[in-house]
Amino acid sequence: MAIRVTVWNEYLHEVQFPEVAEVYPKGIHGCIADFLKDAGMEVRTATLKEPEHGLTQEVLDNTDVLIWWGHMAHHQVADEIVDRVHKRIQEGMGLIVLHSGHASKIFQRICGTNSGMLKWREDGEKEILWVVDPSHPIADGLDEKIIIPHEEMYGEHFNIPQPDELVFISWFEGGEVFRSGCCYHRGKGKIFYFRPGHEVFPIYHQPEIQHVIINAVKWAAPANQPTPVYGNTQPVVEVYSKLEHSIQGLHEQKG
Amino acid sequence: MAIRVTVWNEYLHEVQFPEVAEVYPKGIHGCIADFLKDAGMEVRTATLKEPEHGLTQEVLDNTDVLIWWGHMAHHQVADEIVDRVHKRIQEGMGLIVLHSGHASKIFQRICGTNSGMLKWREDGEKEILWVVDPSHPIADGLDEKIIIPHEEMYGEHFNIPQPDELVFISWFEGGEVFRSGCCYHRGKGKIFYFRPGHEVFPIYHQPEIQHVIINAVKWAAPANQPTPVYGNTQPVVEVYSKLEHSIQGLHEQKG
Amino acid sequence: MAIRVTVWNEYLHEVQFPEVAEVYPKGIHGCIADFLKDAGMEVRTATLKEPEHGLTQEVLDNTDVLIWWGHMAHHQVADEIVDRVHKRIQEGMGLIVLHSGHASKIFQRICGTNSGMLKWREDGEKEILWVVDPSHPIADGLDEKIIIPHEEMYGEHFNIPQPDELVFISWFEGGEVFRSGCCYHRGKGKIFYFRPGHEVFPIYHQPEIQHVIINAVKWAAPANQPTPVYGNTQPVVEVYSKLEHSIQGLHEQKG
Amino acid sequence: MAIRVTVWNEYLHEVQFPEVAEVYPKGIHGCIADFLKDAGMEVRTATLKEPEHGLTQEVLDNTDVLIWWGHMAHHQVADEIVDRVHKRIQEGMGLIVLHSGHASKIFQRICGTNSGMLKWREDGEKEILWVVDPSHPIADGLDEKIIIPHEEMYGEHFNIPQPDELVFISWFEGGEVFRSGCCYHRGKGKIFYFRPGHEVFPIYHQPEIQHVIINAVKWAAPANQPTPVYGNTQPVVEVYSKLEHSIQGLHEQKG
Repeated sequence: MAIRVTVWNEYLHEVQFPEVAEVYPKGIHGCIADFLKDAGMEVRTATLKEPEHGLTQEVLDNTDVLIWWGHMAHHQVADEIVDRVHKRIQEGMGLIVLHSGHASKIFQRICGTNSGMLKWREDGEKEILWVVDPSHPIADGLDEKIIIPHEEMYGEHFNIPQPDELVFISWFEGGEVFRSGCCYHRGKGKIFYFRPGHEVFPIYHQPEIQHVIINAVKWAAPANQPTPVYGNTQPVVEVYSKLEHSIQGLHEQKG
Repeated sequence: MAIRVTVWNEYLHEVQFPEVAEVYPKGIHGCIADFLKDAGMEVRTATLKEPEHGLTQEVLDNTDVLIWWGHMAHHQVADEIVDRVHKRIQEGMGLIVLHSGHASKIFQRICGTNSGMLKWREDGEKEILWVVDPSHPIADGLDEKIIIPHEEMYGEHFNIPQPDELVFISWFEGGEVFRSGCCYHRGKGKIFYFRPGHEVFPIYHQPEIQHVIINAVKWAAPANQPTPVYGNTQPVVEVYSKLEHSIQGLHEQKG
Repeated sequence: MAIRVTVWNEYLHEVQFPEVAEVYPKGIHGCIADFLKDAGMEVRTATLKEPEHGLTQEVLDNTDVLIWWGHMAHHQVADEIVDRVHKRIQEGMGLIVLHSGHASKIFQRICGTNSGMLKWREDGEKEILWVVDPSHPIADGLDEKIIIPHEEMYGEHFNIPQPDELVFISWFEGGEVFRSGCCYHRGKGKIFYFRPGHEVFPIYHQPEIQHVIINAVKWAAPANQPTPVYGNTQPVVEVYSKLEHSIQGLHEQKG
Repeated sequence: MAIRVTVWNEYLHEVQFPEVAEVYPKGIHGCIADFLKDAGMEVRTATLKEPEHGLTQEVLDNTDVLIWWGHMAHHQVADEIVDRVHKRIQEGMGLIVLHSGHASKIFQRICGTNSGMLKWREDGEKEILWVVDPSHPIADGLDEKIIIPHEEMYGEHFNIPQPDELVFISWFEGGEVFRSGCCYHRGKGKIFYFRPGHEVFPIYHQPEIQHVIINAVKWAAPANQPTPVYGNTQPVVEVYSKLEHSIQGLHEQKG
């Protein structure tokens, strides 16, 4: 059965700036949706300006992996939608956060930090992404590095928790490094942050970048994850030293 | 110089229930403050009902490590205070979350999950905490295990991110296990979650438990952590391929 | 294409002890091979007494995932075969170490510790394995716990590195806990340690245990992992400050 | 009480090459010993050509932290000494591996991989080490980065396990990145790998580098770590379902 992907895009730059529209005539979401469809996935898109940002409960319930691109309007994303997405991730939906999505509300929620804190510079300098975990499924079929001729720089310190699995580290011409491919697990859900994707460069047209995103969708897609029982539960085995009243234990321990 | 600790306690059970007051006549915060003072620390306390919950910016700015105990009134903690604590942790303040503090707003923020999700049972059953990382400073001076005669049970699945360092795993008589000593790093701050401490049992009077909390305070206390520079920064080395206008790179890459 | 699995078994207990032979008439390897074949895998077996323990270079080169069960004769495994397996893992072959394989030469090599150090007891007590990472592919299709009516106990401290991913924690009736499902990455290879499997109990006949091993094989199987370049390499970009002779840098830096 | 450090050095380059001797007239070990003594530590040195490489059982038993620098003669280190050091680390001794010590027998043992696999180049290019975990004690008192004007390059992929804690990532002028400050826990011992230190450059004279090594010694020094009990142990609590003979369980489970 095809993996069901929803590609979410802020979709403002493409509308406001002709030079971005020229790179992404169908929007960044349209570009990503196209190559995911070609990879056999069942894809829909959603954008900021749609009602509920296009992320109704029904849409999320039918999404295996959500892709997130945002930049200038993170604050316009409604808190209740962020709550909804956050809950759905813990229930098993995968999340792939791209580039400037690092500062989105949902990624900050996942990280437990102000993940918007990093260095940046728009000099169009060269980026080299090195694979540091060649055993990882997200590195499948890649060379040992990906070269992007011109990109926005993001530099450390990047204020994120140490990734559960770190797949890529980037080099930038101006002297910076960056943890560019970061995996996290939250509840039943898996999250991947992938750095490249400044809107004025044709990053998502680059075949290796598409390859990484396709791998990441496959990695983040839930299968049939166990559903833990939470709350006040009965013991699995008999508790021989059970206290009649917990207050009795109190007196015993105080001695 | 002494480590400056602020012990925060909800301080409701001790007021409402005589059997809890009997165990903790000075409140849970009073008990913890006492043994930390004996260990040479500079300690103050703060509680829910104080203005700003006793956690003014001035208090936090003068706190190296904050200890957190809460249970029935997590929702009464004001969001702006949670924001303030969260920010201060990323700036270096240590945080030690105890027992039912697992479901507090601040720990959920740190975790990036609904960390309130777990199993629980108040049968006063036996708990055994096993050290699984004997190299860890929080295990310093301990035996390989700590036995608590009667405790509330907390069982997996505990909906937290995999700890950066896992120090203790608990066994409960009724068949459950629990990750009971969990370390996290967030920004410049260090966080330790420690499971024991149901209010009706004299857990914080037990010497080994006090020993762990003292170790944890030492571990979580910041020293002179580096202060990264964030934002739009100049390159460290010259960028030879710098683009006059990033749009030029666009055309180049599009070919 | 089917995953190619080699099931390695010491195969001594089944030969020497009729009560073990009764549980595993075709050997532990035979039992495991059968259910893996039923799951669509291409399976061969290998045992200690075969030439080169059945693990020739040719066999390993055609193995995607190696399963390892050993107990009383770890020292009889030749060091050159261990070297060969260790090298092949780093080149991408998956490894699944079962039960008493915890003390094998190959797992000690993987761990970088004396992983033979743990507690054990043969009282046939109850074991409960709890899923602590429900997002993990190895937990796919499971309930939140697996109950084994009678098993040998293994207890902490288990002298292993903190797992890259911890999937299961076990509870034992006598008061112990154990990290029972542990993932590691080494080079291009993935390793899973799975605790259950004392030879006198029909553990590998239990459907949930078979399910975990099948999941683990799928997780550990390499796809098309990148092959890093090692050694003395040319720069990717021009080094502008290149020293004519490194000794010049020496004088410069000494000032 | 002062931390007892043993600085081990291969001590061959300084003897064979006058340009290295000029940088390190007392040997690399002498240079490191000097600044550690100035930091209040109790320091001795040991070198390859001494009997037992200077690492007798008595020396190791009285060492809190061992520092290791080697390069051209890793194969000359006797296996029994490596075994002895490895055992002592698991018993609590700290280990700090410097630069080309990455390929030493002891670090390969710790890693469980062929950690000698990486890229290298002797062009004397610039290295910038970025702090990626500002909360870490090894980063205490540092700026956000350390610049080394001329160094040997080491590049990814570096064939090590994902570090338990990653403190530094290096940038090199020629386009490479490297995980330069890597923490591991093994048994009761802590290990830190620190990249800089090519013998022809005065790296260990640089104050920030000395600062990192001093921090690392403090971090790796054991205190009073717990000593787990291993082997065949009695239950902590009564096992009610204990089998008379484990073979009985066998029959029960087979049904």
